[in-house]
Amino acid sequence: MSAPDGSATEAHQIAALTSAATHIADLVAAGTEVVITHGNGPQVGNLLVKNELSAAVVPPVSLDWCVAQTQATIGFVLQNALDRALADRGVERRTVTLVTRTLVDAADPAFANPGKPIGRYRTAAEAEVLIAQGQHWADLGDRGWRRVVPSPVPIRVVDAPVGAQLAGLGHIVILAGGGGVPVVDGEHGLVGVEAVIDKDLAAAVLAKDLGADVLVIATDVEAAVLSWGTPQARSLGRVTVAEMTAYQAQGHFAAGSMGPKVAAVTSFVADGGRAGVITRLDRLAEALTRPLGTVGTVITPG
Amino acid sequence: MSAPDGSATEAHQIAALTSAATHIADLVAAGTEVVITHGNGPQVGNLLVKNELSAAVVPPVSLDWCVAQTQATIGFVLQNALDRALADRGVERRTVTLVTRTLVDAADPAFANPGKPIGRYRTAAEAEVLIAQGQHWADLGDRGWRRVVPSPVPIRVVDAPVGAQLAGLGHIVILAGGGGVPVVDGEHGLVGVEAVIDKDLAAAVLAKDLGADVLVIATDVEAAVLSWGTPQARSLGRVTVAEMTAYQAQGHFAAGSMGPKVAAVTSFVADGGRAGVITRLDRLAEALTRPLGTVGTVITPG
Repeated sequence: MSAPDGSATEAHQIAALTSAATHIADLVAAGTEVVITHGNGPQVGNLLVKNELSAAVVPPVSLDWCVAQTQATIGFVLQNALDRALADRGVERRTVTLVTRTLVDAADPAFANPGKPIGRYRTAAEAEVLIAQGQHWADLGDRGWRRVVPSPVPIRVVDAPVGAQLAGLGHIVILAGGGGVPVVDGEHGLVGVEAVIDKDLAAAVLAKDLGADVLVIATDVEAAVLSWGTPQARSLGRVTVAEMTAYQAQGHFAAGSMGPKVAAVTSFVADGGRAGVITRLDRLAEALTRPLGTVGTVITPG
Repeated sequence: MSAPDGSATEAHQIAALTSAATHIADLVAAGTEVVITHGNGPQVGNLLVKNELSAAVVPPVSLDWCVAQTQATIGFVLQNALDRALADRGVERRTVTLVTRTLVDAADPAFANPGKPIGRYRTAAEAEVLIAQGQHWADLGDRGWRRVVPSPVPIRVVDAPVGAQLAGLGHIVILAGGGGVPVVDGEHGLVGVEAVIDKDLAAAVLAKDLGADVLVIATDVEAAVLSWGTPQARSLGRVTVAEMTAYQAQGHFAAGSMGPKVAAVTSFVADGGRAGVITRLDRLAEALTRPLGTVGTVITPG
């Protein structure tokens, strides 16, 4: 889903998560141990609009709170859908959603240079008002202006060890949604911070923290594509970390879109993961149950 | 905290939870095994205002989603505060927040008779508009009209077994906030439902499901009081289930306030619990570490 435009209704979200659950349940039924994380862009965008339009009556909440809110709504709806999809397949497993914090560095340069666009597009005049209130906004061209916020690098998924224990008990765990609630470690311990964490990078950190074999980024395209949108376009199948790193350096993958997905799976494999997969959600089970590389883009160590 | 009036700011909530955390940490440091649940009235009230004031731009979400959102925000802020308070006391324990569903009966009479007032007070004219949109509103007298929603009886805290496992691993678990996200079990498995569950009744169900010894309702008064607000007012110390049931029947405790708290602890003890305690949050550790009945109101089996 793209920026908030009123389309991320509850009914749409429930339908999307119910569909996702069937593919995840297929994978679980096939014997794969699964831990789930997810994005939250359109949902956070909606919460920001709510903050803004109700600020005269109720106090707005900060970005870390918005992220937490989306973990809970996406989490319990996905749990309901998964419980059903697993039962339909005769699989007796419990589902769990953990509210999850992700540690970032208070000295991360992202805090001085907010660069992640979030929320709805506004006119220059509208943005000016919000800039005067202390927000950062960027001119994104034809579609208008958009708020930009810090997107610091995830260091550690604070609550991952509990997720690992729950997975060890046989549960299907949903955690670190939206990259996790950003926290910094300061004088008073962990405190939430006004930022959003890239969900793909957080997924790579999470997968490493959990000791996962394979990191899969399920998206809306079947594979990463070289020279996207040109006559030379070529879907990537099985590639090595070295090859993928070179393609990335050559600028084949769009920033804010395929770029972070490629970066996430590549770094996961470079750090010792067995494989990274990028494919469409409805090809998830196939991508992991057939020989790696048959479906989607698969990054391997060498 | 009372109905939403703009006072439930993020800073206020963080301060309140940070204070609560010190009392809970004292109790943990004294050797008591603790599982935590909490209310969410002002927070849900704020979310409803946001729904309403932004409905022309972003789709509103239903009450079950609002409850889930408050579980996550209250949960992670309390985790941060508890982590710090526990560390200050030299206690090495992990904290966990579970997004938690609570099962209610789709045939619960509450769905036909919405009776729980939530959100902000409005004028009769304002209420009329919302009634025309399908909402239920009630005339509450001098302060105006307020939306009323179904408050079905909690049957089972769906995710309590995972909470019990986490507690068994030594973690301090926060779950079933706001009474839990209300779900009904239908043709398509569990689905969220537009309702709120009384937090005190849910706490009693949770305590029973977890096999807890003692259920404590921490509130803003030191004890339950007979003949409240009259010259005959008398604080209750140690009382039996039979005595408390009689006082309740005599109408000593206000509906929507002390009434549900008394009902919750009494039913917990009647169902086999060792004791139920009602006291002020800052007397929590004392109430449980000194002989039962010294501090607060303590309900015992007989």
